[in-house]
Amino acid sequence: MRNLTLLTDFYELTMMYGYFRQGKTDQIATFDLFFRPFDESNFCIAAGLEQAIEYIENLHFSPDDIDYLRSTGAFDEDFLNFLRDFRFTGSIRAMPEGTVVFPYEPLMIVTAPVCQAQLVEAALLNIVNFQTLIATKARRICYAAAPAGVLEFGLRRAQAPDASVYGARAAVIGGCSSTSNVLCAQMFGLPPKGTHAHSWVMSFDTELQAFMAYADTYPDGCLLLVDTYDTLGSGVPNAIKVFDYLKSNGHKPLGIRLDSGDLAYLSKQARAMLDAAGHSDCKIFASSDIDEYVLQSLKQQGARIDIYGVGTRLITSNNTPSLGGVYKLASLNVNGREYPKMKISDNPVKMTNPGIKTVYRLFDRDTDKAIADVIALADERIDDSQPLTITHPLERWKTKQVSNFYARQLYVDAVKDGKRVYRQTDVYALQRYCSSQLDGFWDEYKRLTNPHDYKVDLSDGLYALKQHLILQEREQTAK
Amino acid sequence: MRNLTLLTDFYELTMMYGYFRQGKTDQIATFDLFFRPFDESNFCIAAGLEQAIEYIENLHFSPDDIDYLRSTGAFDEDFLNFLRDFRFTGSIRAMPEGTVVFPYEPLMIVTAPVCQAQLVEAALLNIVNFQTLIATKARRICYAAAPAGVLEFGLRRAQAPDASVYGARAAVIGGCSSTSNVLCAQMFGLPPKGTHAHSWVMSFDTELQAFMAYADTYPDGCLLLVDTYDTLGSGVPNAIKVFDYLKSNGHKPLGIRLDSGDLAYLSKQARAMLDAAGHSDCKIFASSDIDEYVLQSLKQQGARIDIYGVGTRLITSNNTPSLGGVYKLASLNVNGREYPKMKISDNPVKMTNPGIKTVYRLFDRDTDKAIADVIALADERIDDSQPLTITHPLERWKTKQVSNFYARQLYVDAVKDGKRVYRQTDVYALQRYCSSQLDGFWDEYKRLTNPHDYKVDLSDGLYALKQHLILQEREQTAK
Repeated sequence: MRNLTLLTDFYELTMMYGYFRQGKTDQIATFDLFFRPFDESNFCIAAGLEQAIEYIENLHFSPDDIDYLRSTGAFDEDFLNFLRDFRFTGSIRAMPEGTVVFPYEPLMIVTAPVCQAQLVEAALLNIVNFQTLIATKARRICYAAAPAGVLEFGLRRAQAPDASVYGARAAVIGGCSSTSNVLCAQMFGLPPKGTHAHSWVMSFDTELQAFMAYADTYPDGCLLLVDTYDTLGSGVPNAIKVFDYLKSNGHKPLGIRLDSGDLAYLSKQARAMLDAAGHSDCKIFASSDIDEYVLQSLKQQGARIDIYGVGTRLITSNNTPSLGGVYKLASLNVNGREYPKMKISDNPVKMTNPGIKTVYRLFDRDTDKAIADVIALADERIDDSQPLTITHPLERWKTKQVSNFYARQLYVDAVKDGKRVYRQTDVYALQRYCSSQLDGFWDEYKRLTNPHDYKVDLSDGLYALKQHLILQEREQTAK
Repeated sequence: MRNLTLLTDFYELTMMYGYFRQGKTDQIATFDLFFRPFDESNFCIAAGLEQAIEYIENLHFSPDDIDYLRSTGAFDEDFLNFLRDFRFTGSIRAMPEGTVVFPYEPLMIVTAPVCQAQLVEAALLNIVNFQTLIATKARRICYAAAPAGVLEFGLRRAQAPDASVYGARAAVIGGCSSTSNVLCAQMFGLPPKGTHAHSWVMSFDTELQAFMAYADTYPDGCLLLVDTYDTLGSGVPNAIKVFDYLKSNGHKPLGIRLDSGDLAYLSKQARAMLDAAGHSDCKIFASSDIDEYVLQSLKQQGARIDIYGVGTRLITSNNTPSLGGVYKLASLNVNGREYPKMKISDNPVKMTNPGIKTVYRLFDRDTDKAIADVIALADERIDDSQPLTITHPLERWKTKQVSNFYARQLYVDAVKDGKRVYRQTDVYALQRYCSSQLDGFWDEYKRLTNPHDYKVDLSDGLYALKQHLILQEREQTAK
C-alpha cells in the first residue's frame, strides 16, 4: 500500500507544529467534510470512503519522511520525534459510498486530536472530492442513457493514473456497468471491457482481413469497430460478412461499435442493415464525446444504441471538473468540554454549521420516498411518531409541516479509536446501494435540468446554536 | 516504483493477443502521440516525458498480472507465456518537457514491435495528456500574473492523488514557483509552501492570540491569514500588531494572505494599512478561485498582490479539463519494408499524417524568434541556406516565402532499443527550458485571447505522401 502521509498541504504540518509547541496536542477537534451548492448537480453520490479509510489506516511518517521534513528546516527535533510515533487514533463517521448527499450535509465527520484531524484534511478532501464528483457525473450519464448501459472508457483522458483507476471505480458506483481500465478491473474485481482500435484495422491490407483476423481470435462475443474507413459503405457490410461466417460456424458474435460521425443516423442505418441481414441479436455500441446532454439528444432522435462507452466527459466531469468540498472546524474539546465552532462570514453561504452533527432523512410512510433532510445536532432526536415542522435554513419564514414519516440517520461508523470498523469493498454492492438510494427520490429531484428543490433544513437546536455563536462573535468584534 | 503495466485499456491486450495469434509480433509499428486544435490554448507546453520513460522502463507483467489475465478467460497459455518475458525493446523520440508544441506535431514518436507499441498507448496518453494540459494552463496563469509569482495550491481539488503530485510538477514546469503539496515537493526537490488555515484562528479564543501563537512558532517568515472574521476590521490590524512585535524583537515577518472577498479592493486597502504602519516590506499573498482571466481583471483594477496561490482552476484546467491527445499508427515495418499508414476520414481534421516524421522550427536569424514550424518526413532535410516556401497544410494556395532563417529539430532520443537515453529530473531546469522556449515566440502568439495564428506546415514530401495514400484508398474502396 502506498504511503500517502505526506500527501498534505505544507500548512497542515506548520499548524501541527504550532499546536505541538502551544501544548495543544490533547485538544480534540471535530471537522466536517461537506460541499456547498454545486453547479453540476443538485445532489451528489458519496464516494471514496474505502480509499479514505485505507489512507487513515496507513498513516505514519516513515524514517525517510522524517528526514525529509527535517531538511525543510521548518521543524525542531521534539516535533520530529512526536511524528515518529504518530498514528491516527480518532474516529470518523461517514455516509456510506453510494449515498445521495446534498450541499452542507457532512459527507464525513472526523473527530481526533487536533494534530491528527488537521493533517488529514487535504488528502481526505482530495480522495472524497474526486470520487464523489465522478460518481455524481456517472449517475447523471446513466440516468440519461437508461435503459442502455454505460461502460467507462476514460483512461487516456483521465487526470493522471489514479484518476483513471479511482474515477472508474466511482463511475461504477454511480451506475456504469464496467470499465475498459484493466488495472481498475484487477484492483476492484470488475470485468474489463473492450474490443479493438482503428490501428488494428489499419495494420491489415483490408478492413475485411482485419475483421476476419479479429473474429478468428475472438469468435464468440466478437465486437467489430466499423468506422475506420466508411461506416455504412464498408464497415457494417464487412461486419455482416464476418457475422454470417461466424454464425455458420456455430459462433455468436456480439455486435459492432461506432466511434465517430453522426451516431443517431449511423446507428439507425446500421440497425436496419444488421436486421435485414438476420443479425437482430447483434448489439450496437457507441462512443465519441458522449455526456448526459448528448444522450438526451440521441434518445430524442431515436438512436438505436444498446451500450455506450463514455470517456473524457465522464472521467473528468467535463463541465465542472471539481467538487468544491471543504473541511471545516465544527467543534473543539478542551479538557473534556465541547466548544462548538463556526466560520463567520458576511456571505451567508460561506457560514459553516457549528457543533457535532448528524443528518436525518425523512421518508413518507406510504411511498417510501424522501420528503426532506434535517441537519441536526448529534444529540437531537427526531420523534417520527409526531408531526414535525421543518424550516428553511436561511429563510426562516418558509416552513412546512410533515407527518406520516419515518426518519433515518445517514451515517455509519467508519473508523473508531483509530481502527477501521466499516468495510465494503464490493463495488457492485455499492452500486446496488446507490441504486436503492436513488429509488428513494421522486424523478422531480433526479431530472437533469431544473430539478425540484429538495429541502435540507437545520434543526431547531442547530439553528439556535448558530444564531447564538453569530451574536457572540458580533459582540466580541464590537468590543 | 509502481507497476503500471496493467494501466491499459482491455482492447490493447485483446489486440496484442490478435497480433500474437496472427504471427505478427515481428512487425514494427510507429505511432505518433499528438493533439488536435485545443480550445484552451493555441499551443501547449509538453510535459510528462520523465514519468513516461519511467513507465516504459518498468514495463513487465508480474506473476500476479499474468494470473489475473488468465482469470479473464480471454487469452491462451501461449500468449500468457509470451507476456512473461515481455519488455519494451523499442525506441521513443520525444519533445523535451517544456517545449512549445502546436496541434498535429507529434509530442512523442514510438517505434516498437507492434504488441509493445500497442500496449503502451493508453498509459502514455494518460501521462502526457494530463501533464501537458497542466503545464499549458500554468503557462497561461503565470503569463497573466507576471511580475507577481504563482504558487500551486490545488491538492484538495485535484482529481485524485496522482493528479495533485504530477499536476503540481507540471505547473512548476509551466512557470509556478513552487507548490503546497508536500509529497510533490519531496519527490521532485521543490520547497513546500504554506502558512496556516482558518481552523488555526478558530481554535483560539481570539484572532490576535492565534496570530501571536503562529508568530511564536515561525517568528521569521511569518505569514498570517487575515480573513477568518473581518479582513480590514480585525485581520490586518491584528497582523500589524504582530508584525510590530516581531520586528521589535529583531525578526522579519513575511506578510499576509487574503483568501476571500474582493481581492482587488482588500489588497489595495491592506497595502495602504501595512505601508502606513511601516510594513512596506511585508508582502500580500492572495488565493481564491483564481485563473488567468481573474488575474487580468485584478491587474486592470490595480490590485496590490505580490504572490498568488492558485488551486482548483489550475490543477484541473477548469475550463478545459482534458487535452484530447491521440496515438495514431503512422507506419508499419513488415519484413524490413516501411509502409506508411494514415487514418482516412471524411473530416479533414481527423485525417492523420502518415510516415515516420520530424518537426522543424524555423527561427529568424536577426531576432531569434520563431517564424513557422514544418512537419516533415524524418529523412527530409531543410536547407536553411536557401529561401524556403512553406504552404498551409490544408489550404494549399496559402504560401509564404521565408529566408534568413535557421531550422531546429524539436526531438530528443528518449528511449533507444528499450533503454533510457535521456534524463532530466531537475524540474527547475525544465522550467528554465520552457521559459527559453517561450522567449522564442513573439507576444502576438502568446497573448491569452485571440492569439495570432502560428504557421505549422507540412513539407512537400509529407504532403505528397498523404495525397498518394488518400488516392490509393479511394481507388481501393471504389473497387
